[in-house]
Amino acid sequence: MSRLNDLLQQAGGIGRNPDGSITRLGFSEGYFQAAALLRQKMEELGLETEMDPVGNLHGVLPGTDPEAKSIVLGSHIDTVIQGGVYDGMLGVTGAIEVAARLKDEGRKLRHNLEIWGFNMEESSILGGTFGSRCVVGMVDPDAPGYPERLAKFDCSPDKVRAARRDTGRYGCYLEYHIEQGDKLDNAGIDVGVVSGIVSVIRYDVTAKGQSNHAGTTMMVNRRDALVGMSKLIVAAEEDARRLSDTLVFTVGKMQVLPGQENVIPGEVKATFEMRHMDKAVTDRFYDDIRQMAAGIPNCDFEFVPTVAKYSTPCDERLVKLIDGVCGEMGISHVVMPSGAGHDANPMAHEGVPMGMIFAPSAGGISHHGAEYTEPRHVDMGAEVLYRTVLKLDQGEL
Amino acid sequence: MSRLNDLLQQAGGIGRNPDGSITRLGFSEGYFQAAALLRQKMEELGLETEMDPVGNLHGVLPGTDPEAKSIVLGSHIDTVIQGGVYDGMLGVTGAIEVAARLKDEGRKLRHNLEIWGFNMEESSILGGTFGSRCVVGMVDPDAPGYPERLAKFDCSPDKVRAARRDTGRYGCYLEYHIEQGDKLDNAGIDVGVVSGIVSVIRYDVTAKGQSNHAGTTMMVNRRDALVGMSKLIVAAEEDARRLSDTLVFTVGKMQVLPGQENVIPGEVKATFEMRHMDKAVTDRFYDDIRQMAAGIPNCDFEFVPTVAKYSTPCDERLVKLIDGVCGEMGISHVVMPSGAGHDANPMAHEGVPMGMIFAPSAGGISHHGAEYTEPRHVDMGAEVLYRTVLKLDQGEL
Repeated sequence: MSRLNDLLQQAGGIGRNPDGSITRLGFSEGYFQAAALLRQKMEELGLETEMDPVGNLHGVLPGTDPEAKSIVLGSHIDTVIQGGVYDGMLGVTGAIEVAARLKDEGRKLRHNLEIWGFNMEESSILGGTFGSRCVVGMVDPDAPGYPERLAKFDCSPDKVRAARRDTGRYGCYLEYHIEQGDKLDNAGIDVGVVSGIVSVIRYDVTAKGQSNHAGTTMMVNRRDALVGMSKLIVAAEEDARRLSDTLVFTVGKMQVLPGQENVIPGEVKATFEMRHMDKAVTDRFYDDIRQMAAGIPNCDFEFVPTVAKYSTPCDERLVKLIDGVCGEMGISHVVMPSGAGHDANPMAHEGVPMGMIFAPSAGGISHHGAEYTEPRHVDMGAEVLYRTVLKLDQGEL
Repeated sequence: MSRLNDLLQQAGGIGRNPDGSITRLGFSEGYFQAAALLRQKMEELGLETEMDPVGNLHGVLPGTDPEAKSIVLGSHIDTVIQGGVYDGMLGVTGAIEVAARLKDEGRKLRHNLEIWGFNMEESSILGGTFGSRCVVGMVDPDAPGYPERLAKFDCSPDKVRAARRDTGRYGCYLEYHIEQGDKLDNAGIDVGVVSGIVSVIRYDVTAKGQSNHAGTTMMVNRRDALVGMSKLIVAAEEDARRLSDTLVFTVGKMQVLPGQENVIPGEVKATFEMRHMDKAVTDRFYDDIRQMAAGIPNCDFEFVPTVAKYSTPCDERLVKLIDGVCGEMGISHVVMPSGAGHDANPMAHEGVPMGMIFAPSAGGISHHGAEYTEPRHVDMGAEVLYRTVLKLDQGEL
């Protein structure tokens, strides 16, 4: 195995459960153990390191030009409960591999190379992408109840405030991550060049019919809310496939009322979620759904918007640069959106030009002990990251 | 208002709630109060009365021929929680009206006329049609846990055993009841001549797909169990309408797993219920459902049968007799199945020739305070019952 794969397995394996999965939650003992290992590797490579006040690992390899903005690489060190080796850790170890390659080849960069291993990117009571949001100043530590939640992790509003950095000094942010989906693996493509992070749009949808006796109410006289909701789900799913092959539509939660086997459902509540890069596509899809709902007989629908996180595009110049690097390397690659959120979101939100590189996830499996990326793919994406850093340093930043 | 409508409103109104609905559960104070009122009416009409050991009200108007089998009329005195005036009580007061008409007209029947006001027909921890099942000997009072449940109503296995009657002495059982469905009301028909009580067939149906990330898993690669289940419900509902206009199909309960808005459902559990008079129709429908399920992509289905109560036909001679009476009266009528179960089920189960007469339910509403049958329909069905009893007594039994 390569040096990168060795480090990835060593650091990514910290927090292993008996079933082979990894539980290394933010602020946990395993989290800090993994961060300490990564910190030691950074120091061996000449980086100036620190653990910041909110538990993010930070390293700087000083460049030759003190005026130049930093090239920033990073991802997260924490996992979900029963997660895998690759999610997050690939990007942190991949960034360390870039520093190692520079040392191997005796290169000095003109720009500072900064590496972040973020804390608590995964969902928690502090909100997702906690560590990176602290760095860019997107966390309001004084929000009602938030100080109490911070205290559970031995953290505080003062520490959150102290973690903020001047992102005006950041020339770009690059994140190397597993896809967590199955597009690359299914198509047999080696690298994904991320175009942006898709939106997450959610609605609470209620179908209202008329509850009645399941034996005595003839089919022609029913107002069955579950039949109505089923028709809408089938129609919306077909429409999503038709509108765009990167539009995804999910009904993940449903409640059928009154919920007795001998009573016709009078009401069904469900969550409708859609994600896509292009707001025009999700707007069109929502219009279609409303129209389809209006055409379903014997059932009235109500829609309440609950989440509207619009998409975050990657920096166009970075997309082109990474795409060009893959072309030069002669590896199969595709420009594609990310269906999941990442630490790159807050960076882009605060105006840092952001780019992402995806490695294939075998079977699209993620947030699971069976998460796997082939060693050759691990190395290939890191090579793309390394070459992209060199090009950025050589004047393309 | 007619005498029958007066009694129906008086007795049926016992247990009235502030919202106008009626709660008169079996064994409750209101139940015994209503039974006492009905008993007094019976005694005024010359019936020999008793409250049997399990709370059924029983009256006998002796006939002139002690060898002749009894003509038995009845229905139930209890209601559901927040039920209406008519469900059950129509048949008991209708039977008393028959006795009153006999007295009005100075007629003596050759057969004994027996009237039952059954206890606890509605669902309870003792099982539906409790009172009538005790009378025909269908309750096993020593079943595990049953004595404890009986004790909650100050009842006992000995009382259940003592309630059993010799149904060999019953020439026929006639029950006058509201339809509880909307067939008569929608079609503007005055009387339903019941052909039988439909089956109740239930399956637990599980759709199995693959749970996955709702953002990163493209539509073409999903195995969404809820999309699969929705397709099956839509297809089965259409098929039910096509197969027979009296076949009903209901999915009343559903559980979506894991049930998170950002996770593709990997498993959906639902109850499928079908009811019809003809086993060939429900068998065919189930075959269709299995075949449709097999054709749904990206989802596997499992079917576990849970309830298989087959249909109970009414006695053919009684159906013809009642149908003939309606014809003679020149009122609009239709031969139709009952979608709900009744005290007539246990009677038929024990071999008593059974017939039923339905009055229209306005809007098909039942088990609800808004349950309503027009006074003229109340009287019309009772007239059919009276004339049927006369014909049976005049040699057609």
